[in-house]
Amino acid sequence: MSSSISPLAPKHVPDMPAIAGVRLATAQAGIRYKGRTDVLLALLDEGTTIAGVFTRSKCPSAPVEWCRANLKGGKARALVVNSGNANAFTGKSGREATKMTAQIAAKAAGCKVGDVFLASTGVIGEPLDASKFAPVMGDLATRARAGDFLDAAKAIMTTDTFPKVATATAKIDGKKVTLCGIAKGAGMIAPDMATMLSFVFTDAAIAAPALQALLKEGVGGTFNAVTIDGDTSTSDTLMMFATGKAGNARIGRAADPKLKAFRKALNDVLANLAEQVARDGEGARKLVEITVEGAASNASARKIAMSIANSPLVKTAIAGEDANWGRVVMAVGKAGEPADRDKLSIWFGGIRVAHKGARDPSYDEAKVSEKMKEQVIPLKVALGMGKGRDRVLTCDLTKEYVAINGDYRS
Amino acid sequence: MSSSISPLAPKHVPDMPAIAGVRLATAQAGIRYKGRTDVLLALLDEGTTIAGVFTRSKCPSAPVEWCRANLKGGKARALVVNSGNANAFTGKSGREATKMTAQIAAKAAGCKVGDVFLASTGVIGEPLDASKFAPVMGDLATRARAGDFLDAAKAIMTTDTFPKVATATAKIDGKKVTLCGIAKGAGMIAPDMATMLSFVFTDAAIAAPALQALLKEGVGGTFNAVTIDGDTSTSDTLMMFATGKAGNARIGRAADPKLKAFRKALNDVLANLAEQVARDGEGARKLVEITVEGAASNASARKIAMSIANSPLVKTAIAGEDANWGRVVMAVGKAGEPADRDKLSIWFGGIRVAHKGARDPSYDEAKVSEKMKEQVIPLKVALGMGKGRDRVLTCDLTKEYVAINGDYRS
Repeated sequence: MSSSISPLAPKHVPDMPAIAGVRLATAQAGIRYKGRTDVLLALLDEGTTIAGVFTRSKCPSAPVEWCRANLKGGKARALVVNSGNANAFTGKSGREATKMTAQIAAKAAGCKVGDVFLASTGVIGEPLDASKFAPVMGDLATRARAGDFLDAAKAIMTTDTFPKVATATAKIDGKKVTLCGIAKGAGMIAPDMATMLSFVFTDAAIAAPALQALLKEGVGGTFNAVTIDGDTSTSDTLMMFATGKAGNARIGRAADPKLKAFRKALNDVLANLAEQVARDGEGARKLVEITVEGAASNASARKIAMSIANSPLVKTAIAGEDANWGRVVMAVGKAGEPADRDKLSIWFGGIRVAHKGARDPSYDEAKVSEKMKEQVIPLKVALGMGKGRDRVLTCDLTKEYVAINGDYRS
Repeated sequence: MSSSISPLAPKHVPDMPAIAGVRLATAQAGIRYKGRTDVLLALLDEGTTIAGVFTRSKCPSAPVEWCRANLKGGKARALVVNSGNANAFTGKSGREATKMTAQIAAKAAGCKVGDVFLASTGVIGEPLDASKFAPVMGDLATRARAGDFLDAAKAIMTTDTFPKVATATAKIDGKKVTLCGIAKGAGMIAPDMATMLSFVFTDAAIAAPALQALLKEGVGGTFNAVTIDGDTSTSDTLMMFATGKAGNARIGRAADPKLKAFRKALNDVLANLAEQVARDGEGARKLVEITVEGAASNASARKIAMSIANSPLVKTAIAGEDANWGRVVMAVGKAGEPADRDKLSIWFGGIRVAHKGARDPSYDEAKVSEKMKEQVIPLKVALGMGKGRDRVLTCDLTKEYVAINGDYRS
């Protein structure tokens, strides 16, 4: 798909340890791509709990509806992810395809159909031929072994230019627990429509409601604080599986103080994966870290940060290595949140370029220009309205983005 | 500034009649540009009423604040518009510049300072040197004559590739009245930040509150239904001036049935100018007319239409001449408004490509491809939820947009 690796790709890939109770296998099911893996099966030992958060789209894909419905049970035994076809906007046949896929996987895994979770990414609006899973699923279940997460991350890629993995460890009540996560990015290529998918596995023993609370809490400052182009996929999915094999006494409540280190480790993994998604934004040449402080509230800061992060004019200016604070003022103003022009200050790369409603007379254009040439661009806005604060990540908007998403017909 | 005229520019420019009670003149004040006019003075006879609508930005420009404050009087004697400098985010000096400009103009026009209205467009964050108006204003007032609106439209251009004018006539109670409008488009070029400005002049006699109601009503389906990139300027301004010289009995209420033809004529002028703004979107190669019907309400239809119109993925697909309805589904879904995937139908160029939650099996790809090559692309979405309906205009997102807004440093 994508021809070259993003210049923002992490310089090294971490060693990904196995997670007790998780077995992985990948295969070439020929869903759409040739010569690459396109299906991942994760087998989860009995007792595995599950949590999930999904796209807020009013038109979600069939697998999202499947997972939402089955999440209530709190248990998972298998996860099937395919790339090449999103099974989105496929009507009744889409619902049938999810059911057939789950049936095939349940048979291979020896579990209930309702304990199978699904995610699909790729072309939208094309029927997914679930029968293609039948010939490979038995073999996948047989081959599944304590996991190669990097291999798993590769099988779920669409327009990603690099596989995304992250890992962390923590202690719960003295027992070491491990987390391993994989993700694929939000990119689209015609007529494919890709999506953000991420899966986190841990050997910690945590009850499903607590796991759900932890995940929901963790996503706010990580995956929900990343935007490439403001376009929300029909299929965004983040699921977490806890096998309980680490041997800690099972945690029942998210508020349990024993979860302190685990919570941090989870948030680190989510933040790491979310940042990799931003670093692999289509056509991205710069990672932009937007901090808004002094807003009326944290929610207000988020809205303003997102308004800046989704502004085509801010993003094209950054692509052009221009510290165009006028466009930042515009994006603050259009957010509709409390703001006062005459209290506003703006920093690019740590250098204050605007202060109290006007250009900062002391700023050195040459120094700012140097900062704008870097790969990571910190952009800070201080509103002077209150104590609200937020941080979001995005990337620049380049001609390559337009080429990737608009040129395929030529 | 811009090198070539938009391929979407209207094929002919209408003859613009004079408006009794309006005298126009333009000059080269050297605000920023060389070798072109950059200031417009419109002198308005005594008795002229005024109405205005402005950006919803929380960080508006100094001229917007000036106009808002003086609009309450309901009277206008002069309008000064400059291009080259937006006088936005200029702090205290910005307020002083508006005051000085109004004083200079009031002296030249022989009117009160509070009867002078101002608009500025161009670079943001740079102090506007209002003293530059002093040497030209007296001469402008002397030269002002029953108007050359095309000349006026040229003086207020920034990144526009063509001047925008429109005219219409109507009868009020048997008396012929005339409307002439000018506009400049929403484009930005570095480090300039442009804006949408429009001014409509009429010889009708209409009291200020009625004029304000007519303008507010007219803007909803016209200027407020156009988006280039979803970025709201700090300076968007639409003002209307009614000199009362046509000799109709002065109309006091917007609900007066005598206004029927005038209302239509005004809406035609506003719609015409707004469409010209979309046709001059930066880098635009296609005009996209988005119709949403069957929404839960008209307001819901507007939100969904704007979500589609502002989606970078929809806009790049159209630039690529791809009827990518999957991205339209995505944009419908992310709008957050009531929608049901399985009731959704989508048309490109009048051809139904998706029906009831899946690809329309009968659609002919070759015929749709032909339609996508045209300059005007109608895109219709039927939601099947209710009777809400709306229409918005936008343009495609091309590499030229990114080049215009991001390349200037190179």
